[in-house]
Amino acid sequence: MDFTAQLQAYRERIERGLDELVPAVGTRPARLHAAMRYSLQAGGKRLRPVLVLAAADLFAPAGEKASQIRNLKSQITQSTGSGSKSKIENPKSKIQDALPAAVALECLHTYSLIHDDLPCMDNDDLRRGRPTAHKQFDEATALLAGDALLTLAFQLIARHYPADAGLALTRELADAAGSERLIGGQMEDLLAEKKADTTAGELEFIHLNKTAAMLTAALVAGGLCGGANEKQLATLREAGRHLGLAFQIVDDILDATADTKTLGKTAGKDAKSGKTTYVKVHGLDASRRHAREQSDAAKSALARLPDGAPFITTLVENMAKRSS
Amino acid sequence: MDFTAQLQAYRERIERGLDELVPAVGTRPARLHAAMRYSLQAGGKRLRPVLVLAAADLFAPAGEKASQIRNLKSQITQSTGSGSKSKIENPKSKIQDALPAAVALECLHTYSLIHDDLPCMDNDDLRRGRPTAHKQFDEATALLAGDALLTLAFQLIARHYPADAGLALTRELADAAGSERLIGGQMEDLLAEKKADTTAGELEFIHLNKTAAMLTAALVAGGLCGGANEKQLATLREAGRHLGLAFQIVDDILDATADTKTLGKTAGKDAKSGKTTYVKVHGLDASRRHAREQSDAAKSALARLPDGAPFITTLVENMAKRSS
Repeated sequence: MDFTAQLQAYRERIERGLDELVPAVGTRPARLHAAMRYSLQAGGKRLRPVLVLAAADLFAPAGEKASQIRNLKSQITQSTGSGSKSKIENPKSKIQDALPAAVALECLHTYSLIHDDLPCMDNDDLRRGRPTAHKQFDEATALLAGDALLTLAFQLIARHYPADAGLALTRELADAAGSERLIGGQMEDLLAEKKADTTAGELEFIHLNKTAAMLTAALVAGGLCGGANEKQLATLREAGRHLGLAFQIVDDILDATADTKTLGKTAGKDAKSGKTTYVKVHGLDASRRHAREQSDAAKSALARLPDGAPFITTLVENMAKRSS
Repeated sequence: MDFTAQLQAYRERIERGLDELVPAVGTRPARLHAAMRYSLQAGGKRLRPVLVLAAADLFAPAGEKASQIRNLKSQITQSTGSGSKSKIENPKSKIQDALPAAVALECLHTYSLIHDDLPCMDNDDLRRGRPTAHKQFDEATALLAGDALLTLAFQLIARHYPADAGLALTRELADAAGSERLIGGQMEDLLAEKKADTTAGELEFIHLNKTAAMLTAALVAGGLCGGANEKQLATLREAGRHLGLAFQIVDDILDATADTKTLGKTAGKDAKSGKTTYVKVHGLDASRRHAREQSDAAKSALARLPDGAPFITTLVENMAKRSS
């Protein structure tokens, strides 16, 4: 399968997963679940869940994997159906279906966007070309929908994985989303806005935690589902760090150079609001060079993974060239 | 040990646990961790973590328990110290130290209070006699501190328990805090404020989810740490449901009858803001009768637990008689 077809296949699987694994339309309270689905279904690149699925696929031959996942699925269904809480481990393999973890990552990402858009944070009206959650619903509903998506990520992990994989995934996701990583990055980002000057070091802290932490967690979560060994997990971490920095630098370049229609969100807003961006600290030329360097470092880590991780490598290349 | 001494001992253990298990003062970003600790250290009854510790203590003879927990602690320390992620199961017992779970419950409770106090929710300036988090810091910091405490609950579970117990705890806490329980109750509570009349059934939905869900999760989490069997876990669930309803009815009675100084929060606020309370729907006399009935039902479930669960039974009795 070529890259574009594979990306499309992953995205379709993710859309189906989101629809199946998030509480159904009409679940009480209907307004809360409508807001959760509204924000999840805003589309977007689905970068994090794609990374989960693609990383999982690195570590298992396709034929073996498919049959084992079918086997696992029927065991999980039986286990859930009987109301039993015990998880069944597949004795032949550590391979798990990566889809619930992929959906959990998208829930975490969407929660962080909803809260980030709130009036007391970035006060953004537009996200992916549509009204943000608090504009479409109201602030309280948006706040609670964010809380609910954060919590749902852990519900999904606890429901769909056996104990060993489930607790490792819980730890990976909770640490990446925690006060010293994702939320810490958000906090320092807010504090940086109020300062006259932000140093390159402070900006790197923000990017590493606000952006790279969750992209890294996506790759590692995929690795955990696919049965990666410790060395492979460390390589995924290294790739995630560089990929995350590259992604955020490109984001800042686009904010400074693209228009609102292309971006699907308010362009030039970061610069106007006095937000410190990579472009502001390093200038446009150096930003482009650093984005390339981080992309190359990500690719060099990926090259050490099975078959050289061709799909994720192309994804990194495309991301560096993207226009939105 | 008599009830008062035992309660004091539990609370001291919880205060130490909070201090040790929450990121230290000065951890970057310092402002975020200061806000998390500010809200956690506002004191309060520590009802939920006390229930965790007391429920765990029901299921293990004291001598056996103490030595096993010491043994477990040293294993966990060795495991964490070596950087290994593998959790060591105690082959002799399913008993786990309940303190990290107790702290996790208090983190979840505190997060829900911080978000509930925000201007877009209840807009409360006072909590436990002190300025609420968004008054002491600012809205964005309060929002992020709440997010961080919710996430920390799962970090603590993932770090401190072996796989089986850890994933069962993750599931219990995430489901109780999720969109169909705690957050669902908050959402319906907000919606009820905007309606002319709330039915008794709608109010029960709110109380069961907004209050009883987390009190039940506290008892069940304690049971899971103590090694309770399925039947005992079901009895803890039954006790938690009644205890939770009794607690919320008494809360509504106090809001209608006590003064601000005694409560440590703004009295009469619920009635004034048009919030539907148990007293408003059922009247004061029926509310007092229903509180007593729910207390009795909780005690009758507790009577079926080992030794009749004397500590928790007294706790329920005192709660029904409380004045703040």
